[in-house]
Amino acid sequence: MLNRCSRMYVILILSLQILYEEWASYSIFYKYQPIGLIRKYFGEKVGLYFAWLGVYTQMLIPAAIVGVIVFLYGCATVEDNIPSMEVCDERNNITMCPMCDRACSYWKLVTACGTARASHLFDNAATVFFAIFMALWATMFMEHWKRRQMRLNYIWDLTSFEDAEVSHSHPRAEYEFHVMKKSLKKEQSPKSLFLLCVFVCSMQICVTLAIVFGVVLYRVSIMTALHMSSTPTFRTNIRATVKTTAAIINLIIIIIMDEVYGAIARWLTIMEVPKTDKSFEERLIFKTFILKFANAFTPIVYLAFFRGRIIGRPGKYIYVMGSYRMEECAHAGCLMELCIQLCITMLGKQLIQNNLFEIGVPKLKKMLRQRKIDKKHQEELNKTLHRHEKDHFLGPFVGLNPEYMEMIIQFGMVTVFVASFPLAPLFALLNNIIEIRLDAKKFVTELRRPIAVRAKDIGIWYTLLRGLSKVAVIVNAFVIAFTSDLIPRLVYQYMYSPDGTLHGFVNHTLSYFNVSHFQPGTEPMEPMHLGYKVEVCRYKDYRDPPWSATPYEFSREFWAILAARLAFVIVFQNVVMLMSDFVDWLIPDIPKDISIQIHKERNLIVELFMKQERGKKYRNTIGDPSPQPLRSRPSSQA
Amino acid sequence: MLNRCSRMYVILILSLQILYEEWASYSIFYKYQPIGLIRKYFGEKVGLYFAWLGVYTQMLIPAAIVGVIVFLYGCATVEDNIPSMEVCDERNNITMCPMCDRACSYWKLVTACGTARASHLFDNAATVFFAIFMALWATMFMEHWKRRQMRLNYIWDLTSFEDAEVSHSHPRAEYEFHVMKKSLKKEQSPKSLFLLCVFVCSMQICVTLAIVFGVVLYRVSIMTALHMSSTPTFRTNIRATVKTTAAIINLIIIIIMDEVYGAIARWLTIMEVPKTDKSFEERLIFKTFILKFANAFTPIVYLAFFRGRIIGRPGKYIYVMGSYRMEECAHAGCLMELCIQLCITMLGKQLIQNNLFEIGVPKLKKMLRQRKIDKKHQEELNKTLHRHEKDHFLGPFVGLNPEYMEMIIQFGMVTVFVASFPLAPLFALLNNIIEIRLDAKKFVTELRRPIAVRAKDIGIWYTLLRGLSKVAVIVNAFVIAFTSDLIPRLVYQYMYSPDGTLHGFVNHTLSYFNVSHFQPGTEPMEPMHLGYKVEVCRYKDYRDPPWSATPYEFSREFWAILAARLAFVIVFQNVVMLMSDFVDWLIPDIPKDISIQIHKERNLIVELFMKQERGKKYRNTIGDPSPQPLRSRPSSQA
Repeated sequence: MLNRCSRMYVILILSLQILYEEWASYSIFYKYQPIGLIRKYFGEKVGLYFAWLGVYTQMLIPAAIVGVIVFLYGCATVEDNIPSMEVCDERNNITMCPMCDRACSYWKLVTACGTARASHLFDNAATVFFAIFMALWATMFMEHWKRRQMRLNYIWDLTSFEDAEVSHSHPRAEYEFHVMKKSLKKEQSPKSLFLLCVFVCSMQICVTLAIVFGVVLYRVSIMTALHMSSTPTFRTNIRATVKTTAAIINLIIIIIMDEVYGAIARWLTIMEVPKTDKSFEERLIFKTFILKFANAFTPIVYLAFFRGRIIGRPGKYIYVMGSYRMEECAHAGCLMELCIQLCITMLGKQLIQNNLFEIGVPKLKKMLRQRKIDKKHQEELNKTLHRHEKDHFLGPFVGLNPEYMEMIIQFGMVTVFVASFPLAPLFALLNNIIEIRLDAKKFVTELRRPIAVRAKDIGIWYTLLRGLSKVAVIVNAFVIAFTSDLIPRLVYQYMYSPDGTLHGFVNHTLSYFNVSHFQPGTEPMEPMHLGYKVEVCRYKDYRDPPWSATPYEFSREFWAILAARLAFVIVFQNVVMLMSDFVDWLIPDIPKDISIQIHKERNLIVELFMKQERGKKYRNTIGDPSPQPLRSRPSSQA
Repeated sequence: MLNRCSRMYVILILSLQILYEEWASYSIFYKYQPIGLIRKYFGEKVGLYFAWLGVYTQMLIPAAIVGVIVFLYGCATVEDNIPSMEVCDERNNITMCPMCDRACSYWKLVTACGTARASHLFDNAATVFFAIFMALWATMFMEHWKRRQMRLNYIWDLTSFEDAEVSHSHPRAEYEFHVMKKSLKKEQSPKSLFLLCVFVCSMQICVTLAIVFGVVLYRVSIMTALHMSSTPTFRTNIRATVKTTAAIINLIIIIIMDEVYGAIARWLTIMEVPKTDKSFEERLIFKTFILKFANAFTPIVYLAFFRGRIIGRPGKYIYVMGSYRMEECAHAGCLMELCIQLCITMLGKQLIQNNLFEIGVPKLKKMLRQRKIDKKHQEELNKTLHRHEKDHFLGPFVGLNPEYMEMIIQFGMVTVFVASFPLAPLFALLNNIIEIRLDAKKFVTELRRPIAVRAKDIGIWYTLLRGLSKVAVIVNAFVIAFTSDLIPRLVYQYMYSPDGTLHGFVNHTLSYFNVSHFQPGTEPMEPMHLGYKVEVCRYKDYRDPPWSATPYEFSREFWAILAARLAFVIVFQNVVMLMSDFVDWLIPDIPKDISIQIHKERNLIVELFMKQERGKKYRNTIGDPSPQPLRSRPSSQA
């Protein structure tokens, strides 16, 4: 007969086998994960991660469906969209001011027809609805997860388990060593360390900003260079080329800096010498999150809120680095470019990080490790070695934080900028379906079995999720109000339109510029490019015309629309927050059946306790009929 | 020797004696309350109320001090305030448009000098600071109370007490009767009841709105009537008289409707037949709160946000009920009138409700009860009757809800409109110092001893407080942005002022009106009232002058200032919410010493439990080393 140890071993091997078949396979992506088994084999912490990932992926399904519907609505209504019809109408014959100094010339608005039509796909009335929907979705997801977690806690028998028991009491060895060392020589005060940390973090964020600015400069200069060149085929593809290369450069920088920032966060946390493992982990996660989040979102924030807003006006452009004009947006707003950036970031980050870092690098490492051992020996070894010895060839388990971090950043993409890219949930869903099985494969086949760690909840990640979904509400409000053209359209329709429709909207958004007001040396070199002499060109802004008393000042319409945009932000933010709070209040945190069950069990324990006490006649110490904690109370009951 | 019952009785009498001396006396208002004793005599629920009231009153002290400082700052800077100096400067000689049709004539801006100076007391830069301070104060109060409650829970040994034990399991008798009745004849569905409730509540809110509108009409009509009368002494005091009488009428209506609404809320809740006592109480409180809050705050909200905003403009006023023009605000905004209303409401409500309802009515009832018994018998009875028999002459204990409600409405006044009335915390503090002792006296001498009820927290009241402090942030943002003149002043200073100071601000806020554009029949009867012929008069609004291309349209300045106001709301709300969240996160909910103590005790219990188990060899059922709840788990550990 097998001894106890061998029996355990067989059970483990069997579990692994089942996990391999029932979990770590792409062909069963539509099935629920065997969470109970995962928890038994890998421990509660890993179990919770996969349960969370499962809930998240499941919740992404309705979001993806609604997102696709919103996108399809945009596609279906693109033909009826009056503003893009007006842009594409040759009869309007609107001459636009040049996009750059000297090299560019005047251009016809009708050439922006394609962009205008494409913009409508992501900038229509359904977007507002979708942003509200996604804010509520985030709240529901949170609530749903809380309930699921509670249920798992109950099933896994963690309701009476306290985190405090594990980690509060055990200081890390590094901490004790540090305290010992510090008592010998007084070195760094915690205050200076905190300041150092804040300093380094803000430095890094500055670096991120500098990089974004660098990419902007790249775009501006390449744009100018391309415009200068006389090859016409180049010119036509200028915009697309520059946009795409810039987005890819951004992406590559993001991925590289991600690794750098991870290292910096770790270094900073080690410097801090937190007391317990738990606080070490939390601090590390928090720092990494701040840095990676800033890294991933700065280019997007720039595109959404700053691009094309600080360009000045014809005749008085704002120049950076001497002679580069800041970039303008395409005619129909920057929303389109924001979309492209989001799309490339999401797809690229997921593809590259998944394939390269999560599959490629571990495989490479495994190969290297196996190379070390002589090839001939290997096969012999394979037969004679025990499972745990073979495990040594596998990669070490480095914790769940990178997995969580990736998902949180993705959650940020899905919620924070969803107003500008309704397909984000779909992309996330597709990624996550693969991600679950990929992680499963990695855990089952590539990594050594981790030491099982108990955990009651997903800890600081939940706080970060909550924070993100709060930030999402306000960012979406700003995206809809300022990046999309929704508010100007509405204001035009209800305040300025002569017939209550959007006819004439495009004309209303364009201001007039008298070409004789160009600063010397900035007028186009080929003014007759379009075949006729241009006296007045148009540009996208709300400014007074040259013939008014206050030429080129912001017009009354500018301020009225700004007020409307801001009013929208206030209304949107407060309505969505109210609705979220309502949803939060509506769904109880603990499922009804579980709370009844817990209540019953608690009563049972009390009864049992009392029965025992009565039997043993302990009355003088703890025989009070109510289950009181043992303590000399400062006051006795009257 | 005394038997056990008599001994208890003596202890009770002694407790009451101590409470009377150490608590229910105005002369010791500066002392802490003997909360432990109060809890022992009246039970946890009453104890928590007085503890809460104590924390609230204590927290009001810093708020009152800062409020007084802000007010004094206003007083000190009134002489340096450029706008009010300009209003009071005779040399400016600004002719204002008449305040009413026909009966009123043109007037000099300099006559509004007093109001302009008074307005500065409540409308200066310190107000913004104070509004932020009070938002953080509300968060700190909440946190402070949470900690205090935790400490009391620990001292009173309620940490392991569950509300659920008491109330979840016992359905009310009325509920069971109702269920029985319903099973006999199917009568009302809960859905229709809910709709009824929503309907009645909204009806009541409509009634409140109608009343407010009625008071407005009263003011408008009296104003016109007074203007019509030719007695000059009348005229000079017109504004003050009308304002004060209207505020007093509002107050009386509020107090009367308060009682009516209380009855309606109770009737509605009885109709609903909630299942448990707890849910009955919560529903009743919630409904009463909504109605009373709407009742108390509608007139204030009207004054703050609607008064003087929907008046139209000279030549095109908005008329209500045929011929009444909507009210204008005095020159320096409506903030002053809002102040008066708040002041009268707070003082009046507190004085009348405290004195009349809390002292007068119970005294009267007591007298009536005692009258019933023959006077001669009474003295004999007094000697022979037992304490509990004498108690019968006292009023019945009607629960703490009216007390809490009063305080919550006061908390609303203190936080929600604090930007317009920085003395509110001081008023509240003074009231509460009296209120504590008044309630104490009432509990000790006027009411029968209530049946002691256990409670772990203040229940739904905490939720309401949280809700109020959230509402407060947004309302204060709007009050500062729209009711005070802060934003127009700042916009003028940084956008329009030729020299960067406020000189010329008053002129900037006044638009021009050509008196030949009056609608026929609305021009003043005495146009030469001021002694010269008026061609152009001024009115407070941002509109284009009559000689512009778009006469009397909202001007560019109007929209720019509106945008600035809205931007301020967004920034204020988000910054304050962020700061509140930060404070909330900074202060741990459970005091450090208590959490350590609780942790230690829990360990002790576990140890004891294990020791017992080991001794008794119960291993086969509950001998697992970890303190697991007893249950047949669906899955066994691997």
